[in-house]
Amino acid sequence: MKTVRLGIAGLGTVAQGVLKIVADNGELIAQRSGVELVVVRVASRTPKPGVDLGGAQFSTELADLYEQDDVDIVIELIGGEQTAYGFIQAAVAAGKPVVTANKAVIATQGNTLLADSPVPVRFEAAVAGAIPIIQAIQQGLVANRFEHVVGIINGTCNYILTAMRDQGATFDDALAKAQALGYAEADPTFDVGGTDAAHKLAILLGLAFDAPFNFDDLYVEGITEITSEDIQYAEELGYRIKHLGLARMTDAGLEARVHPTLVPESQLLASVNGVLNAVLVKADAAGNTMYSGPGAGGAATASAVLADVVILAQQLTKTGGGRQSDLIDIPVLPISQTRCAYYLRIPARDEPGVFAQVANALSQHGISIEAAIQKEPQASQNHVAIVILTQVVQESQLTAAITEVQGLREVAAGVSCIRVEALD
Amino acid sequence: MKTVRLGIAGLGTVAQGVLKIVADNGELIAQRSGVELVVVRVASRTPKPGVDLGGAQFSTELADLYEQDDVDIVIELIGGEQTAYGFIQAAVAAGKPVVTANKAVIATQGNTLLADSPVPVRFEAAVAGAIPIIQAIQQGLVANRFEHVVGIINGTCNYILTAMRDQGATFDDALAKAQALGYAEADPTFDVGGTDAAHKLAILLGLAFDAPFNFDDLYVEGITEITSEDIQYAEELGYRIKHLGLARMTDAGLEARVHPTLVPESQLLASVNGVLNAVLVKADAAGNTMYSGPGAGGAATASAVLADVVILAQQLTKTGGGRQSDLIDIPVLPISQTRCAYYLRIPARDEPGVFAQVANALSQHGISIEAAIQKEPQASQNHVAIVILTQVVQESQLTAAITEVQGLREVAAGVSCIRVEALD
Repeated sequence: MKTVRLGIAGLGTVAQGVLKIVADNGELIAQRSGVELVVVRVASRTPKPGVDLGGAQFSTELADLYEQDDVDIVIELIGGEQTAYGFIQAAVAAGKPVVTANKAVIATQGNTLLADSPVPVRFEAAVAGAIPIIQAIQQGLVANRFEHVVGIINGTCNYILTAMRDQGATFDDALAKAQALGYAEADPTFDVGGTDAAHKLAILLGLAFDAPFNFDDLYVEGITEITSEDIQYAEELGYRIKHLGLARMTDAGLEARVHPTLVPESQLLASVNGVLNAVLVKADAAGNTMYSGPGAGGAATASAVLADVVILAQQLTKTGGGRQSDLIDIPVLPISQTRCAYYLRIPARDEPGVFAQVANALSQHGISIEAAIQKEPQASQNHVAIVILTQVVQESQLTAAITEVQGLREVAAGVSCIRVEALD
Repeated sequence: MKTVRLGIAGLGTVAQGVLKIVADNGELIAQRSGVELVVVRVASRTPKPGVDLGGAQFSTELADLYEQDDVDIVIELIGGEQTAYGFIQAAVAAGKPVVTANKAVIATQGNTLLADSPVPVRFEAAVAGAIPIIQAIQQGLVANRFEHVVGIINGTCNYILTAMRDQGATFDDALAKAQALGYAEADPTFDVGGTDAAHKLAILLGLAFDAPFNFDDLYVEGITEITSEDIQYAEELGYRIKHLGLARMTDAGLEARVHPTLVPESQLLASVNGVLNAVLVKADAAGNTMYSGPGAGGAATASAVLADVVILAQQLTKTGGGRQSDLIDIPVLPISQTRCAYYLRIPARDEPGVFAQVANALSQHGISIEAAIQKEPQASQNHVAIVILTQVVQESQLTAAITEVQGLREVAAGVSCIRVEALD
């Protein structure tokens, strides 16, 4: 097993996420990738004594991360723009490959930085948090000519617009709620004004259209002018209002703009709610593919940081990717031992007391009813349909209960069972 | 520029898709990846004289693809199971890396095949067509412990269930329509019975849980018993019925099952309709990420095949990945030259003829109205809101029209404009 030594700049939530994942899942990552990751150094101007560094050496000097020989890959998580840019420049000049989550640096300085760097700089975490959208565009869709890339790429805006729609809240109330929940900063200008989304769009645009990161040329509009009436009228017309970053190749040239947008409610992107992010990519061969997930948060962003770290670590150690040979033989549970909620449709005679009989039979097998509807008999039928949603039970319990229900004199024909998954 | 020579087995829609993409986008792929792809041989038992092979040599002998020295990577697209398995085994034994779209071979023979192969075998196209889900699980989410992987991974089933819901069709009618549109085979058993989804779930499960591909142990149920009543009752309870492949790690063990499932309509997966595929992955660090797109089709599947081909080609030629240096300087269009539909909210005096005045002003600037609603004045307001959706216009036209509308005596205050994107 080869070991790759990491140095982390910063000690905020993402840095803490990286430390935690390496501690919790390091063995699993090693098994999958063939590389053992060890965080050897952490540097931050502000020490945080409460954070478990897992044996890494702490310093308040960022330069220790690239001036020392014991770091193989530097992870930049200090945020901000100028300091971070200077730090990344110094690290790559010292020959250290860098992984960064810094969208502002890549969007505004990325052209120079990447062109000049003698070693790789990777930035999967800079756009849409946990979603591996950069890899999808650069590798998964490498054979495609892109038509448009459209994203809900600011979770704060999406949370506010969702709250305005779901709760009929005003912009100010929704913002206040977002702030209370930690989804918006005390000074929310950067998010609700559109700059953060524009940083991300500049990166997506550059990758999809093989162009420079063009932050200065983007048209940027925030969501501060959207009213609850607009959201309601849009709804009546069959649309949802989303804050989008959009880059589209047209016959006239490249459109690139960030603004609130009416999206038809039939579009999957219209159903991406709350703090979620999503990027929709239209490409000539692949068609429309969409990628959604958490756009922020310590663990989610750290997941993307570590995806880049593993790629670099495999390159440094010339460890092959692909499927590991050391598989875990996990037996699949027999279906009778699986657990699910169930939808039951029970055709029954239209007589008093039938529902109670059925409920009683279910109850005797420990099955609780979550919801039920009883449908009137239709002209062509001589029985009613009792429709029941159960709570989660083991399949063997359900099978026994169904056998009993089928045996009831009042039940007319076969019971239909369909599984229910809340997917939470 | 390094050249990598491809040999394609098969000449069906996916093979034709690969040929077309290499012809159309080969230069772009070379620019991005540093590797020029050339299809040097195509082998198929059934010649198709109408297909443009772009200079590749044709043979009816599949063995020509691995017995000749002029092929670097073999692409298996013949389908079926035993013949394809034998062919892939022979190709890897001859030292040719293989890319395949064959889910049946990987799901049922993949454990032996991958363990024995001296060269890489890649299969991104085997699951969910164009969606780079295998790369997302293996690389993008490499640092995560997976909790569940849940997919709508059979387009035929999803089309049928969507048609049953949207049009109130019976299963038989929806199936007939799917067959007429080419979304279902003449013998649809493999799809509607769940076997195809089970092949894909076996692959996803193996990758997510670092386990063998466990096709034989899966519980498999198709959609043939679902009635339109079930879909309607589920709807009344707040659910959609989807055909899912689901693998979940529980305290009791690994659940792995393929069956129709009620999914809460608030879940994004519930809004994945028609022939689309989607895979929802719940992982400890990244949280819930979802990947959706076309699950079948020649071009879409070929897109995934070529993603694998480029990775292998870069490995063979030791060409680095990452961002190309040769960027294209594409100017971003000024916002005035971009084209969009618009939502307009126009506060106007509650007088007769106001709507006609507004419509006239728009019309004079070449702007057509797609839809409009006029809202009654509210108690607190002394004006009505005229809400208009325009057809697609250039922004400069709209700006001029709005200036004119603002100047109307009947218009009371600032007009709100929000862009509309159909995203089709």
